[in-house]
Amino acid sequence: MTSLSSMSFSESPLSTAAVEAAEALYGELTHDIRGVLDVAIRTRVEESRVAQARQLIQQATQILAEDAPPEPAGIHYNADGRSWNWGNAVVGVRNAIAPPVVLSWSDDDLVSSDVDLGVAYEGPPGCVHGGVSSLLLDHLMGETASNRHTQLIVTGTLTLRYVHPLPLGRVHMEGRITAMSGRKVTVAAHIRPADSDVPAVEANGLFIIPRWADAESVTGSLD
Amino acid sequence: MTSLSSMSFSESPLSTAAVEAAEALYGELTHDIRGVLDVAIRTRVEESRVAQARQLIQQATQILAEDAPPEPAGIHYNADGRSWNWGNAVVGVRNAIAPPVVLSWSDDDLVSSDVDLGVAYEGPPGCVHGGVSSLLLDHLMGETASNRHTQLIVTGTLTLRYVHPLPLGRVHMEGRITAMSGRKVTVAAHIRPADSDVPAVEANGLFIIPRWADAESVTGSLD
Repeated sequence: MTSLSSMSFSESPLSTAAVEAAEALYGELTHDIRGVLDVAIRTRVEESRVAQARQLIQQATQILAEDAPPEPAGIHYNADGRSWNWGNAVVGVRNAIAPPVVLSWSDDDLVSSDVDLGVAYEGPPGCVHGGVSSLLLDHLMGETASNRHTQLIVTGTLTLRYVHPLPLGRVHMEGRITAMSGRKVTVAAHIRPADSDVPAVEANGLFIIPRWADAESVTGSLD
Repeated sequence: MTSLSSMSFSESPLSTAAVEAAEALYGELTHDIRGVLDVAIRTRVEESRVAQARQLIQQATQILAEDAPPEPAGIHYNADGRSWNWGNAVVGVRNAIAPPVVLSWSDDDLVSSDVDLGVAYEGPPGCVHGGVSSLLLDHLMGETASNRHTQLIVTGTLTLRYVHPLPLGRVHMEGRITAMSGRKVTVAAHIRPADSDVPAVEANGLFIIPRWADAESVTGSLD
């Protein structure tokens, strides 16, 4: 059985400047891939045009594969304390599946994010997939439970109540720690349309500080 | 506030043969986009090669945008009873975010799926994002609750227990209806590595048959 430990993270010799340059370079590539992913859902162009588009995408894939180790991106940090998880399915700046979500911490410890969810996040017609809401809330809540990345946590249980459909478009989500006791951190959160005060999905989560985290310097959410 | 109704679905004049031809044509395009999405997370090629890859992807996007209405894909069905939701974030054959999941119904009403989750589904290093497990389980459970698409359901509540980390790679998930009472359908499910019997995430869901579904011929999951 797989287990996580501090060995799951790797300290990297990359400087913070090098990390940021890489995020800019590959982030723009990922932005372009989000674009083709979106239009591919909607396009009605005919077979010969599809064939041309496929050829171009295959050529791009070949170029990028010239130097591409098979391993997942993982989570890395450097001596400055800068960390990065480029492949993360929610916040990864190099992962076109991720919107990506960008989180904000307010002075009163509310963690929030506004994010545009396009046609690639659809479930019910014109609405955000219920599982996408749970994906995004799970991540936001894990980061919330990490208490500004001062403690390493893993998800214990997550409960979601689906109250209203959530239309595609700009959404707002926010979470807050509601209790801390020993190794347990409780978080409440919701997601809603950015232009409404009515939650579409409400969530409660119980997060755990694993024993192996005690002696380690690594902190954050293990989502 | 958005609400769903039978108007959310649209009957299409497309023949089943035309639907299947479109799924083949655009499904191959989507397959190629999954490929470039995956390698873009892993690539280390230098700036000039990234620029070339971006140019190719932008050209492909332009071609596909020549005829691409802005609307999301929605859910459609034809007079044969064939339905399709090409943009769905979990099962959409035209959505590169979707693995896509393909579900199987066994004789004893177990709904299951085996799916390969590559580096784009990462959360903890080398592992499936906890929120991705909830995304996939939410969808499988909704389809399970639809009782082989004989009833239209929406998600009420979903509870997930994270028991073990789930390594990236081939995973198995399965769900089953555990109770039905009035408008409520209860489903239990789990996800685990395909080569293990030990669940990584266990889930229970309560699904609701909406009142507006009573008079309608449309059935299935509204995920």
